Amino acid sequence: MESQTETPDQHSSADAVYDLIVIGGGAVGENAADRAVQGGLSVVLVEAELVGGECSYWACMPSKALLRSAQALRAARGVSGAAQAVTGELDVEAVLSRRDSFTSGWKDEGQVSWLQGAGIELLRGHARITGPRQVSVTAADGGVTSITARHAVVLATGSAAAIPEVPGLHESHPWTSREGTRAQSVPKSLAIIGGGVVAAELATAYAGFGSKVTVLARSGLLGGMEPLAGELVGKALDSQGVELRLHTAPERVTRTGEGVRLETSTGETLMVQEVLAATGRTPRTGDLGLETVGLEPGSWIETDDTMQVPGFDWLYAVGDVTHRALLTHQGKYQARAAGDVIVARARGARVDDAPWGAHVATADQRAVPQVTFTDPEVASVGLTAAAAREAGHEIRVVDYDLGNVAGAALHADGYAGKARMVVDERRQVILGVTFVGPDVSELLHAATIAVTAEVPLARLWHAVPAYPTISEIWLRLLESYGRPGS
Amino acid sequence: MESQTETPDQHSSADAVYDLIVIGGGAVGENAADRAVQGGLSVVLVEAELVGGECSYWACMPSKALLRSAQALRAARGVSGAAQAVTGELDVEAVLSRRDSFTSGWKDEGQVSWLQGAGIELLRGHARITGPRQVSVTAADGGVTSITARHAVVLATGSAAAIPEVPGLHESHPWTSREGTRAQSVPKSLAIIGGGVVAAELATAYAGFGSKVTVLARSGLLGGMEPLAGELVGKALDSQGVELRLHTAPERVTRTGEGVRLETSTGETLMVQEVLAATGRTPRTGDLGLETVGLEPGSWIETDDTMQVPGFDWLYAVGDVTHRALLTHQGKYQARAAGDVIVARARGARVDDAPWGAHVATADQRAVPQVTFTDPEVASVGLTAAAAREAGHEIRVVDYDLGNVAGAALHADGYAGKARMVVDERRQVILGVTFVGPDVSELLHAATIAVTAEVPLARLWHAVPAYPTISEIWLRLLESYGRPGS
Repeated sequence: MESQTETPDQHSSADAVYDLIVIGGGAVGENAADRAVQGGLSVVLVEAELVGGECSYWACMPSKALLRSAQALRAARGVSGAAQAVTGELDVEAVLSRRDSFTSGWKDEGQVSWLQGAGIELLRGHARITGPRQVSVTAADGGVTSITARHAVVLATGSAAAIPEVPGLHESHPWTSREGTRAQSVPKSLAIIGGGVVAAELATAYAGFGSKVTVLARSGLLGGMEPLAGELVGKALDSQGVELRLHTAPERVTRTGEGVRLETSTGETLMVQEVLAATGRTPRTGDLGLETVGLEPGSWIETDDTMQVPGFDWLYAVGDVTHRALLTHQGKYQARAAGDVIVARARGARVDDAPWGAHVATADQRAVPQVTFTDPEVASVGLTAAAAREAGHEIRVVDYDLGNVAGAALHADGYAGKARMVVDERRQVILGVTFVGPDVSELLHAATIAVTAEVPLARLWHAVPAYPTISEIWLRLLESYGRPGS
Repeated sequence: MESQTETPDQHSSADAVYDLIVIGGGAVGENAADRAVQGGLSVVLVEAELVGGECSYWACMPSKALLRSAQALRAARGVSGAAQAVTGELDVEAVLSRRDSFTSGWKDEGQVSWLQGAGIELLRGHARITGPRQVSVTAADGGVTSITARHAVVLATGSAAAIPEVPGLHESHPWTSREGTRAQSVPKSLAIIGGGVVAAELATAYAGFGSKVTVLARSGLLGGMEPLAGELVGKALDSQGVELRLHTAPERVTRTGEGVRLETSTGETLMVQEVLAATGRTPRTGDLGLETVGLEPGSWIETDDTMQVPGFDWLYAVGDVTHRALLTHQGKYQARAAGDVIVARARGARVDDAPWGAHVATADQRAVPQVTFTDPEVASVGLTAAAAREAGHEIRVVDYDLGNVAGAALHADGYAGKARMVVDERRQVILGVTFVGPDVSELLHAATIAVTAEVPLARLWHAVPAYPTISEIWLRLLESYGRPGS
């Protein structure tokens, strides 16, 4: 390992040489770099914006911060005895200021000092691949640094909001998730184009702030999840005063002196202060020099389960840019596998790439957890019933009403929620679980472990949920399914 | 099965005959009866008080109900943006009234109608064993009914509060968990003798109601749990204004015209309105006729893992009365095993009594989950570090500060809590987990599944916690331990 930890300065070449170059300093890139450093490699991380990336400044952290205060207030209002003490309203200024503290005011000193502590070198600038293992970095002042990777280059540049092709939309300067999460004031009215997680979460947040929110969702709410997710969240948004326009698309958008006018596919015209596009993501690969090594700029990057790009022994990709699962935690998971396998390959050590091995991201196909921080929350992992059937599994679906669980009734007056378990009938293991209800987010990891570890139902009967918690849903689901062998 | 489902009336004997007699109609007895009926047996349940038992009326349900409103209010106060809206105080009358709704005003019509729906016959009265398979039931009006069990008798009579031998205590009519959970008004001051779960929960509840609470805990708080539990809960009680007298015992108790006077082992004298004894439990086996079959009245009932009493092919015990784990959920778990194995033995079917089989309560030794609904909550499962060492395991202990998890910081400003994972070094599985912190109760089931299913650490690395939830503690614990094989 000594030769591999050689510092760039000691190298004879004119270019700086590192064992590993990571392009993109979000949480995902940081994790890949960290694992590689822990394995003894020298690593440089290249970042063009803020170290910490999308999740820290313009996605998970600020959006959860925008949602949490209202959630806590609703929880208190939802329990008699506490409700009587809540006489005021959500303090929106305080929420925005709390959000600012979680984004460190959009400054990355904290992250940079973490990099230093972790022994990861930072290079600020825009990275472009110029050939195999070769990267040039253009700094903000125009200075260019050429660097070389002894072993590998990891692409972790993430994704950006995709602006849909609607006449006038681009020219109307729509908000995206970035503006939605970093806003310093609340528009009186907001139209959200899209029906996915970002749309649902930001509709919940801004409605809670008193904004008049309209959601235009061409194909319903929370598509791709179990249908009960979109149903319950839609009902809740509606009762929060959000105008839902499902199966409706904008046909023309115009920014005027008074705000933004949207003409919809159903002939309606809306006037709003701002419009937010939340219709999906596009890979940040347009200006990465991919063409210099025969890859297509602007496309998602395909990888194998060790996160290596097929046909390249030196190129890896992790996180959103792979399109495997556009979630920070899943990207970090891929990054751990990638960082470790790069170390193993650099050392000539054994590569553990069997399914569920240390060097593969097997869970990407089998057990991706996701929480949508709406109210009710949606927490899901693994396959939906529809996806399981499509994949050819022989399944049985068990549904149970969360409100009938004693722990849920104690948690909130009139608690309403649902749970679904998808069972692989042949193997007697769980393929997927979805919980929809207030405060279900922390219930999810039990399901993630059950799905990931392929725990047989017969053993799950011995995992006793503590009474009276909402987790007793597990007993109810098992009882509804029936005990194998009894 | 036809002969086994024969109804009592059709039987030739003068006594009513059932396949199974269950003595004690708490949640545990109900579960044993239900499983047996589902297996085709005729079952009579004998209950002397309220169907639904201790947990429904004088323990888990009312105590959680007494705690939940204040917990929700503290949560709202703990998040800037929400805190500003909480200008009032907890409405104690509303909390007591909400508690009444969860205990159905101490009426059991709902439970009785559940029994009817489940096909379980109810006999009200005090049951005494009179010989093998023979039980006599004395009703409130003094009438006696003799019943016979064709296959088995299950003892599910539970436990009662033990009043410690302190001079004057008994004569001072102390509260127990029953009075503490069913109170219709709040004493101005309350002394609690004991430092276990009941003491800690009721101290939290009554302090929240504005009572001046003093806790006398001879051997510290929450003994038997990881030390961090007692430390953090003690600190929180202290900051709630609870007077903690640890390593202090009452030496004399006297009820006077003004209230109750306690003289303590440290020479202190306390005057309080009420005193509550929470120093443990005693089995309800004193007047069960155990002597007629050679068992000791007043003792805990020993069983094997199928819940059968050694030496008796017809006698079983489940729940508190076995002293295996004095928790409703664990009793219900035992009851499921007992009900199913009684059916299997009655049918002459295969008995699945290997560890983790369908007919044994293996988890009682390995994976008992428990939540203490204090604030912070304590959620634990499996072995503590001390218990694991004592059992001869080669272990490694991993501690992590919950406040350093992003999801926890988002959940509450200044979130403080701790997690501990106890790893079996030889087998690379988790033996025990303890979480202490606000709202950790729903984190527990993930640990319960991991411990119960003996999921290898290497696989747990693939169980990705959703970001940003408090469950990310799992990643931090694994990272602190280090990844096997990487």
